[in-house]
Amino acid sequence: MLGRIVVDDVRPRTPGGRNPAKVAEHELFDVSADVLTDGHVLLAARVRTRPPDGVWSSWAMDDLGNDRWSAGGVHLEGLGRHDLVVEAWIDRYATWRRDVEAKAGVGAEIATELDEGVLLLRRLAVHAPAARRARITDAADALDDADTSLDTRLNAALDDAVAAALDGVALPDDITEGHVGAIWVDRPRALFSSWYEVFPRSEGGFAGVARHLPDIQAMGFDVLYLPPIHPVGRTNRKGPGNSLVAGAGDVGSPWAIGGPEGGHTAISPDLGTLDDFKGLVQGAQEHGMEVALDYALQCSPDHPWVTQHPEWFHHRPDGSIKYAENPPKRYEDIYPINFWPADDGDRLALWQACRSIIDYWIDQGVRIFRVDNPHTKPFAFWAWLIETVQRTDPDIVFLAEAFTRPKVMAKLAEVGFTQSYTYFTWRTARWELREYGVELTSGPTADYMRPNFWPNTPDILSGPLRYGSLAAFRLRALLAATMMPSWGVYRGFEHGENEPASPDNEEYAHSEKYETKVRTWGTDAPLGELLGRLNRIRRDHPALHRLRGLTFHDNGNEDVLVYSRRSYDGDDVVLCVVNLNPDEVREDTLGLHLDALGILPGATFDVVDELTGAVYSWTGANPYVRLDPAVAPGHVLVVRP
Amino acid sequence: MLGRIVVDDVRPRTPGGRNPAKVAEHELFDVSADVLTDGHVLLAARVRTRPPDGVWSSWAMDDLGNDRWSAGGVHLEGLGRHDLVVEAWIDRYATWRRDVEAKAGVGAEIATELDEGVLLLRRLAVHAPAARRARITDAADALDDADTSLDTRLNAALDDAVAAALDGVALPDDITEGHVGAIWVDRPRALFSSWYEVFPRSEGGFAGVARHLPDIQAMGFDVLYLPPIHPVGRTNRKGPGNSLVAGAGDVGSPWAIGGPEGGHTAISPDLGTLDDFKGLVQGAQEHGMEVALDYALQCSPDHPWVTQHPEWFHHRPDGSIKYAENPPKRYEDIYPINFWPADDGDRLALWQACRSIIDYWIDQGVRIFRVDNPHTKPFAFWAWLIETVQRTDPDIVFLAEAFTRPKVMAKLAEVGFTQSYTYFTWRTARWELREYGVELTSGPTADYMRPNFWPNTPDILSGPLRYGSLAAFRLRALLAATMMPSWGVYRGFEHGENEPASPDNEEYAHSEKYETKVRTWGTDAPLGELLGRLNRIRRDHPALHRLRGLTFHDNGNEDVLVYSRRSYDGDDVVLCVVNLNPDEVREDTLGLHLDALGILPGATFDVVDELTGAVYSWTGANPYVRLDPAVAPGHVLVVRP
Repeated sequence: MLGRIVVDDVRPRTPGGRNPAKVAEHELFDVSADVLTDGHVLLAARVRTRPPDGVWSSWAMDDLGNDRWSAGGVHLEGLGRHDLVVEAWIDRYATWRRDVEAKAGVGAEIATELDEGVLLLRRLAVHAPAARRARITDAADALDDADTSLDTRLNAALDDAVAAALDGVALPDDITEGHVGAIWVDRPRALFSSWYEVFPRSEGGFAGVARHLPDIQAMGFDVLYLPPIHPVGRTNRKGPGNSLVAGAGDVGSPWAIGGPEGGHTAISPDLGTLDDFKGLVQGAQEHGMEVALDYALQCSPDHPWVTQHPEWFHHRPDGSIKYAENPPKRYEDIYPINFWPADDGDRLALWQACRSIIDYWIDQGVRIFRVDNPHTKPFAFWAWLIETVQRTDPDIVFLAEAFTRPKVMAKLAEVGFTQSYTYFTWRTARWELREYGVELTSGPTADYMRPNFWPNTPDILSGPLRYGSLAAFRLRALLAATMMPSWGVYRGFEHGENEPASPDNEEYAHSEKYETKVRTWGTDAPLGELLGRLNRIRRDHPALHRLRGLTFHDNGNEDVLVYSRRSYDGDDVVLCVVNLNPDEVREDTLGLHLDALGILPGATFDVVDELTGAVYSWTGANPYVRLDPAVAPGHVLVVRP
Repeated sequence: MLGRIVVDDVRPRTPGGRNPAKVAEHELFDVSADVLTDGHVLLAARVRTRPPDGVWSSWAMDDLGNDRWSAGGVHLEGLGRHDLVVEAWIDRYATWRRDVEAKAGVGAEIATELDEGVLLLRRLAVHAPAARRARITDAADALDDADTSLDTRLNAALDDAVAAALDGVALPDDITEGHVGAIWVDRPRALFSSWYEVFPRSEGGFAGVARHLPDIQAMGFDVLYLPPIHPVGRTNRKGPGNSLVAGAGDVGSPWAIGGPEGGHTAISPDLGTLDDFKGLVQGAQEHGMEVALDYALQCSPDHPWVTQHPEWFHHRPDGSIKYAENPPKRYEDIYPINFWPADDGDRLALWQACRSIIDYWIDQGVRIFRVDNPHTKPFAFWAWLIETVQRTDPDIVFLAEAFTRPKVMAKLAEVGFTQSYTYFTWRTARWELREYGVELTSGPTADYMRPNFWPNTPDILSGPLRYGSLAAFRLRALLAATMMPSWGVYRGFEHGENEPASPDNEEYAHSEKYETKVRTWGTDAPLGELLGRLNRIRRDHPALHRLRGLTFHDNGNEDVLVYSRRSYDGDDVVLCVVNLNPDEVREDTLGLHLDALGILPGATFDVVDELTGAVYSWTGANPYVRLDPAVAPGHVLVVRP
């Protein structure tokens, strides 16, 4: 049965409500809900939260009007699934106080009301914390003192100290535990992270990458993501440019996983030994970074599973195993796994085997997995895998590499993925960046889907980067680094690698997926310094550590995008004014939403450009800007009220 | 565990999902849902519905794009709670067909695909209806015929007759019963109704009202709503104008229910006997009308419950019972009921007693209840009451008279109320009528809340009706009658009664709540003919029988409101062009959305004014209109493509 009070539409939440919404540890956020009851009584409400195996904390909710209530500044400590309860009760004291004040205000008879107040205070005192009980009982006594005037008696009960003593005190029958749910708490890096993707085989294996950790650290990244490090299949190995014929020295696609040396828990001999890998994991840690591994659930024809577990693959009428294809495209070097074999025992064994891969790499020190094509495996599998892994290891991060339809991407996040790739690479016009930014940071998915913005990946060279100038690369880096709390680039970006495989193909020319590449490190990379500066700005500004708090401002020119980010407490505000045209100077007059910047109308305020150090003094909402892409992609301005 | 396929966000639905959405019997509507799975397989989906104790029907769903699916033209027969299931499955045949056609299209090898097709068709044939099995098996045989060409074999399996035989056929393991819910089916009058409110005591009791049934029928109403017909209390009886002192002959407020003659199941002797009442119920039926009773759960101090069940009321410290008040307002002639007494047994007895009132009047032939102030009683009570009443009598209609905050009104509808009063009386400007119209007919509440538009009630004389001309009354009647499928007026409206109690008071002067009124009937009422015409237009046009299907059109003048209504099948379209200014002529050029009218761009079409019979021939989207409030409040145009 319904309780006396109805609690509806609690946020944050996932659409289905079965899976928890997500926050990061220490992240400040709001919990809000509709709280309704019948009649004219006044309500009070609070949020109660409890970490796994912990004790309850309580957060007072305020009435925002129109029956919406909110608790601000909620923050959760301890990883994992926290219980969340929204509890509401009839505030008998506030209701009595409102009614007696209304009557007294019109000079009506209040003697009976005072008698009611006495009874009420005595009843409430029983349920008050012991330390406050005397204060409430004293007020009841004063209210009950027939020897003094009505006014004196009333004032004794309306005293602020009495109200404070009664704060949160309720009669047990008046309380409705209106909503019981959960929130998942991830570690801070699940929310705020800067990724750098590198193919170790192009760098001389793990040891080679380890030598350049200082260079990567100088660029400010904190997640070092490696494409699959496992043995690459021989059968149907791909040659350069995804050609069907591989030469003797061709390295093949690292996503064609498995060979005589082993499968997903083996290491390609070209890259080094397990000890070399652990050395890289350790070295990364010493340089403020963490290694992320690729989790690509597919097999080369030479993977041990193919012979050991043929029941985990799709078979054709002639007995052969089906290779991956998306007609007319073919991936002859890969067998997809059949995640839903007819026999339930087979399915369970397969899912456990997939999980044991994760367990193995966790044992080697890996806590972040970038998951390849999760949208081609069942949602039910991911829900099961992530839940069971995180039950014991709640710090494990899963990034979903699903470039597919929006509802599928959101559903993957809903069933458990920690972060998600996005459509950012294809969003280039002002209107679509605005629309997408609003959707991701304040739409329904913001409660559970954390976008990770990548200007490029080994699969995608798109938009202004194709044949693009260094200015185009600067532009896209600035957007990705400041629009979202997580971003990443694929090595080569800092060199401005811009040659596509063909005019109508998003792949790179000489794609590193099929051959190794030789590049320089350090100061030779023309964009390395900018990446380092952007990541430093990101670290310095709490405003850039949140998903929420993004505001788009108005302006005239279609090539100029203006947005600000604001920390939860409002103390830190970063305003970005970006020229989306990498080739031409743009001038514009802005239409700033000063309230989002914490600036009073008409006030004069300073903005400091974190890219150049320049200081501008602006007055009012309509400053003039001139953006020369040859100098910088835009302004990253700290607002100083 | 999640199934292979995910079904989300099924509409229609209520926000919480516990209570069913509502439709009327025979009403055509859409059922839609998100249907998602992993990978590249093609899906199929259907809605299945089942009436109480009935058999399943099935409605094919179409893919609307972006993973949204919909079944159109769903309609349910039989009142009560229908089960609703959205079921999805992998369409193996369509997937195979798509893949083999893609391969054949690029000249790839397809022999193995044909072999796979043979196996697939033979497996599917097992699960096909018996009558279609041979057709599928024949196709499998042809596909398996190694003596003919690949093309011939393929064409045999791609034949449309084969596709038709396989329509809806699925392997049992491929089916996900993704959503199981319910829809409540009301009788048609729950959706489409025209109410007329009359105080029988002003008309000479039930017999007097019965004499004028032909007059009410002539105005086209089909629900005759009577304020409380029970004995009126003596204690603290209100005098004219809500005064505290009632004279000997004063009748008091009929909402102060109960006297020595009885309570909610008794009849005020002034109005007649139970037989007179039954005569009115019977007479109404003979005139195409139904009597609706007021269900006002409160008691005069003289109500039998006050002495029999003091535990059902709020007591003060001095032992007295608390009268109703909303400080500083007081209702000394009414005791509110305490719906949540401390003792659960008392609560249950009270709720059962409230229900027995409904049962009693159902036995006297009443099937519609207008519920007074439901928002001052617990949601849980209404959920329980309506559910238990409708379990045996699913045709009972409950109209919620809750003029309160929007979420409370929506929640009352969600927990079971059939219809709801609205803010219409206070919505007078173009922008607010548009906004409110859109919200009510296409917002989330449209799935379960049915608005009833009243230009006036005995409590509310507002907006342009205050001191208003007859033109103002015509205007408000036109809006209420055509914007929503349910509307109503309180007697006196047809006479243009326009005098408020005071300039800042929404009540009527000489309010009929506290005294009787003498009015004429029939042709003497200056607006009777218009009301009859409006109700006739409503009856004639299926476009006006739906909640959904309202479109607002563009135009320049702020005083001109343009909207159309369209039947589900699109065959009937009514376009209203209303002058919101009752005093001045308005001219305007419209910006019609021709697609909503079923008119091709640039086409010439006729519109026939149902108020005047005038015919206009228009070409294109921008006709000119001239609206003289002295002649008519606007056009009610039937669109003839």
